[in-house]
Amino acid sequence: MDDEDLRQTISDAAPETEATEEEAHLGLSDAFIREVQDLLDEGALDAIRALCADLAATDMAELLTKTTADTREALVEVLGDLIEPETFSYLDYDIRHNLFQAMPAPRIATIVNALDSDDAISLINDLEDDRRGEILRHLSRRVRAAVEEGLSFDEDSAGRLMQREFVAVPQFWTIGKTVDYLRAAAANLPTTFHDLYIVDPAHHFAGSIPLSRVLCAQRSTRVDTLIEEDQVTIPVTMDREQVAHLFRRKDLLSVPVVDDDGKLIGMITVDDIVDVIDEEAEEDIMRLGGVSDSDIYRPAVATARARASWLGINLVTAVLASMVIAQFEGAIAKIVALATLMPIVASMGGNAGTQTMTVVIRALATKELSSSNTWRMVGKEFAVGSMNGALFAALMGSLVWWWYEDPYLGGVIAAAMLVNLMAAGLSGILIPLGLQRVGFDPAPSAGVFLTTVTDVVGFLAFLGLAAALLL
Amino acid sequence: MDDEDLRQTISDAAPETEATEEEAHLGLSDAFIREVQDLLDEGALDAIRALCADLAATDMAELLTKTTADTREALVEVLGDLIEPETFSYLDYDIRHNLFQAMPAPRIATIVNALDSDDAISLINDLEDDRRGEILRHLSRRVRAAVEEGLSFDEDSAGRLMQREFVAVPQFWTIGKTVDYLRAAAANLPTTFHDLYIVDPAHHFAGSIPLSRVLCAQRSTRVDTLIEEDQVTIPVTMDREQVAHLFRRKDLLSVPVVDDDGKLIGMITVDDIVDVIDEEAEEDIMRLGGVSDSDIYRPAVATARARASWLGINLVTAVLASMVIAQFEGAIAKIVALATLMPIVASMGGNAGTQTMTVVIRALATKELSSSNTWRMVGKEFAVGSMNGALFAALMGSLVWWWYEDPYLGGVIAAAMLVNLMAAGLSGILIPLGLQRVGFDPAPSAGVFLTTVTDVVGFLAFLGLAAALLL
Repeated sequence: MDDEDLRQTISDAAPETEATEEEAHLGLSDAFIREVQDLLDEGALDAIRALCADLAATDMAELLTKTTADTREALVEVLGDLIEPETFSYLDYDIRHNLFQAMPAPRIATIVNALDSDDAISLINDLEDDRRGEILRHLSRRVRAAVEEGLSFDEDSAGRLMQREFVAVPQFWTIGKTVDYLRAAAANLPTTFHDLYIVDPAHHFAGSIPLSRVLCAQRSTRVDTLIEEDQVTIPVTMDREQVAHLFRRKDLLSVPVVDDDGKLIGMITVDDIVDVIDEEAEEDIMRLGGVSDSDIYRPAVATARARASWLGINLVTAVLASMVIAQFEGAIAKIVALATLMPIVASMGGNAGTQTMTVVIRALATKELSSSNTWRMVGKEFAVGSMNGALFAALMGSLVWWWYEDPYLGGVIAAAMLVNLMAAGLSGILIPLGLQRVGFDPAPSAGVFLTTVTDVVGFLAFLGLAAALLL
Repeated sequence: MDDEDLRQTISDAAPETEATEEEAHLGLSDAFIREVQDLLDEGALDAIRALCADLAATDMAELLTKTTADTREALVEVLGDLIEPETFSYLDYDIRHNLFQAMPAPRIATIVNALDSDDAISLINDLEDDRRGEILRHLSRRVRAAVEEGLSFDEDSAGRLMQREFVAVPQFWTIGKTVDYLRAAAANLPTTFHDLYIVDPAHHFAGSIPLSRVLCAQRSTRVDTLIEEDQVTIPVTMDREQVAHLFRRKDLLSVPVVDDDGKLIGMITVDDIVDVIDEEAEEDIMRLGGVSDSDIYRPAVATARARASWLGINLVTAVLASMVIAQFEGAIAKIVALATLMPIVASMGGNAGTQTMTVVIRALATKELSSSNTWRMVGKEFAVGSMNGALFAALMGSLVWWWYEDPYLGGVIAAAMLVNLMAAGLSGILIPLGLQRVGFDPAPSAGVFLTTVTDVVGFLAFLGLAAALLL
């Protein structure tokens, strides 16, 4: 049955779910997912199996991801071996966790045995400790050894990211001998590889050659004459963010991983790096938004609990700011307009500070901000805060003068606005820099400190000036 | 002079700047940048040239990026042809713009002529209209044709991203003939390529074969027998975000780009996609933070102006919220504690809503949220808001009861907190979904609408309940 026939079968089973080929590569249609759900409700299990037999692992993962928890477990039962092992690598942590809890250890072990070593390691790593031992015992000896070695590396290190499958030949070989070897050994090589690695007799890394250069070279050429200058290797302990930075800088496809002695022990490929880049960006976005990580597949109770800790910290901040206000209750009782206007000053400071902080945190993550340009940036952010402070001071001052027909109240809010936007510019850059300097990741915590500063300075400047000048 | 000698020369010129080889791949040291700056101040131009002669394009770009505008222009003069043309592709838009303004058109044309077609197009695209025509006239005929064709495609389309350099052979060739051809034509092929493309006699795309499969196949094999099922092609009009989504889903290295007739016209490679992914993530992060894009290389005045529009929108929001407060000035005058406590309710709502909004906007960007699971998510976010609302209502209610020794005031703030956190959960998901539905990108604007809702609901619930129950 060829591809055309197979697609025909699928479209027979569910006529309305057929998508153009181009759309099919971009993901499942909602109609397809509903169709599966309907068939499941009708108990038409054979029809589901026929419909899903042809799904690629990424599509199967999407199907399992977008259905409810109950449907998901039922589908895993119904589809059984039709689910390719790689599917489980593509699932979100929370979803996989729930599916594995309902699955006997030998079945999980069968899945892990079929994966590339890097995927096997990350899957085992996500298991709870007691479950992990049980499943390790059911693994094949080869996979178990690879997994146990992999787990010995630090969680964010190159050692976790690398796969142990790569293609290396001795430096004294010719292109002819290499090509003959590759043709003869094809069945035992990784299905795809991007670069040919060259090693010396002690298996030390000697160089890497892009396959396009191997293909274009004459048979008589010695492989080591094709090795270019500026070879990149990654020590097994390097942090994965640094590995990603390296791939970006050098436009690499694969990089050899070496141990302390320079021995070639693994390879990291660009598709793993694309995942790392996505995860790091996601982490930054989530942390700036006050969420520990993407929780869309977690049940409501667990989500609420995870988010509560961040809200708790913000409550402390908010109470702190309101204690500042409490100091001026006397002034507010006399001029109640102060209560109406004070949130404006605080909110503008918070927003201006967040703008600066966002740019700074991103520049720190991409290493665009370093000691050579830090002070220039601090000066610039202070200047930006002063300029926008002056602009909005003038605007808000005039508005309040007109609104309350009180030039003095207008002057006070203008002064407070200027002070708070200057403070926001400075703290927007100094807080993340300071957190980084003392060894904290600025993304999750800088926002709390920042709004504390802009709230406190905003209320203090506005209410303090009002109390001093207007009473 | 081999690599070792060259590094020796550099370290002689600036002994303190030598880094380990591993560090060198990750970027320039601050000491190196300072050294260049010092040499420039001393007027030791030959020493600068010796020090920088060996820099890779990415390192040169980093050097130019991290120095001040004056130093940058001076360095471009001093280094001249030592700056590889690719260097300019790696520069930030603002920096390149300033350098090009001071550069004669023929020199820019020489740079553009030496670039790959995709880089040439994006560089010309960034120029101002009048400058663009002038430089186009100085380009070689071949590059000019490629650039003009490229510029005819939509800015965010695959046509802009693709390069016109790729390797394709007829479908009836054998591996043997292909390899012989590649070896003979090596000098005229792209320096590296990742996949071999197969075309029919009319130059329609017929399939793509990873080079590792080409290398491992027997000489007598016909190339078209190696083509696997599930071939991916990209229409020249596809949006670049969709292209990136496709690379992620399929772990691709390169993808052929075809025109309306299915003719092979270009290739997009994974390193361009890594850049797209970085840019899209950066865009999302910046917009959530209220910044149009990363502005760290822009002068203070331009930065202030760009950020002011966002602050202006926020000012409107803040004034709206304060108009709600103004309705209750009578209540505040009687119970001044209301002024102290009201920012807490608004701020908790804003933070809880931002948590939901961050998760939702990210899920929309990664296509994890679609019509099949939308209503489940809305229900969940309302549940999360209710649970955390109840928790913080209890906490804050007790605190205020104890603080002001007033159980009724405690009850009012508890009720307002619950209402506002439920509203925050709902609007955190419904606002971005609604914006997306009516065709707006939710990232830049959802936050403004959200804080308007949480501020207004927070003040209204708290002050309204207080006015109704406590006066």
